[in-house]
Amino acid sequence: MPETDPTAPEPSSPSAPAFSSPPPSAPVPSSPSAPVPSSAPSASVAAAPYPFEFSLDDTALVIIDMQRDFVEPGGFGESLGNDVDQLRTVIPVLAEVLEKCRSAGLLVIHTREGHLPDLSDCPPSKLARGNPSQRIGDPSPNGRILIRGEKGHDIVPELYPIDGEPVIDKPGKGAFYATDFGSILAERGIRRLVVTGVTTEVCVHTTVREANDRGFECLVLSDCVGSYFPEFQRVGLEMIAAQGGIFGWTAPASAFLSALAGQAHTHVPGQQPLTALADPVRAG
Amino acid sequence: MPETDPTAPEPSSPSAPAFSSPPPSAPVPSSPSAPVPSSAPSASVAAAPYPFEFSLDDTALVIIDMQRDFVEPGGFGESLGNDVDQLRTVIPVLAEVLEKCRSAGLLVIHTREGHLPDLSDCPPSKLARGNPSQRIGDPSPNGRILIRGEKGHDIVPELYPIDGEPVIDKPGKGAFYATDFGSILAERGIRRLVVTGVTTEVCVHTTVREANDRGFECLVLSDCVGSYFPEFQRVGLEMIAAQGGIFGWTAPASAFLSALAGQAHTHVPGQQPLTALADPVRAG
Repeated sequence: MPETDPTAPEPSSPSAPAFSSPPPSAPVPSSPSAPVPSSAPSASVAAAPYPFEFSLDDTALVIIDMQRDFVEPGGFGESLGNDVDQLRTVIPVLAEVLEKCRSAGLLVIHTREGHLPDLSDCPPSKLARGNPSQRIGDPSPNGRILIRGEKGHDIVPELYPIDGEPVIDKPGKGAFYATDFGSILAERGIRRLVVTGVTTEVCVHTTVREANDRGFECLVLSDCVGSYFPEFQRVGLEMIAAQGGIFGWTAPASAFLSALAGQAHTHVPGQQPLTALADPVRAG
Repeated sequence: MPETDPTAPEPSSPSAPAFSSPPPSAPVPSSPSAPVPSSAPSASVAAAPYPFEFSLDDTALVIIDMQRDFVEPGGFGESLGNDVDQLRTVIPVLAEVLEKCRSAGLLVIHTREGHLPDLSDCPPSKLARGNPSQRIGDPSPNGRILIRGEKGHDIVPELYPIDGEPVIDKPGKGAFYATDFGSILAERGIRRLVVTGVTTEVCVHTTVREANDRGFECLVLSDCVGSYFPEFQRVGLEMIAAQGGIFGWTAPASAFLSALAGQAHTHVPGQQPLTALADPVRAG
């Protein structure tokens, strides 16, 4: 879909919402047990399939798996034959988003895919899948592959967590499964996620799907997520926003930053972020 | 990818496994706490990216959301402007797979997406998403939309559950979230899923991703899953099998049925299936 005008209707594409009719006349039933955003949204992002609304206090920036082994030359991802340049284009844009979110006082959460040194949290199916030449836990120039604490498993320097930013160590593709991610979001009243990282169709998509089922509103920043495969990048983004936003919204970083800029005055520069609670490497 | 020869290598596509090297020389670490298949696989399906192995006693056929409102003319899906014929091609092929799986004694599990009449299990975000002209819970010719117990919410007659086949009622796209699906699989020693139903990129994909993170091996039957959008169907299947099978395997129903035929003699025709435990409409 055209990022330059993400709200333009496209009647013949999957992005054209099946839900393209006028607003409903029927009343919306109340949903007493489901989570409700903590406050009315105060900012609006030009997004597909329609504007994404958020507030500073109920929204988190989520940076998924920007780990050395996935995005740096010489890492595990490249050793498997993948073109890491497809992912590295994300870094400078995402670094700007990260800096602006920090300045605005938005909660920032990082995730890392990896396993305990004894691999007790790694399903045999994951170890064996694909009959790989290098398996999880094997030695590599960046340390044991996808093992927590090893160099290759850690986040790239350009996007490194600072104090107060939770880091979710996850054994799967989704950030909710077998982690504290959902609890951390609930404790802080987060209902909306601005999702970034790699790869678009794998860990980003899986996390957005989990979040969507749990009632979160997700905005995926199209130039802050990356895939090794251009078609998966394009179609993966289209799948998010299709059918009236079946999984959520997509927008370029510039659209989000424009909306954020109108909100940033609510944060006092130099003030400790609201979220300085968790050690940056232990959550999850 | 070519369904006629799903195991053929395609070096320039995402389906070409990054993991295309010889088997590893390093030992595979043991994983004491992770689930292990209950027996050695006894059948092999010609699949992408490589053969899918299974046994009758550790494998279930999963039929996702083959509900009237999604696949029948005059239902909710069609009323939203979707072409249900894109999904209905699945029915005859899946009906044959279902019959053969029943004859072979394979566990069959159905899922349905929907909500309690008071909508207490429906996130506000899901109700409001897309500003639809018809919302979940609204009246329609098939009863209240996506409400459990209504006609439109139920499974199409061609694939209707029989006694002993659990039916998972799920509030989200994934079959694991907020349901008993994972418990039912664990109790019966199921480690492998043959996944079918609709839609490919939404509920099928989300369920496969959840299953994969939990250590299940998933085979998606390419002609037994359907999408309203042909590109999402094609690319959705490619995403499953890419990178050495990052989410699982894909194969046409014929390949699975060939492998199943070699196994069917282990079941005594007329014998009650092993799995006749649950009421067909209450699980989940």
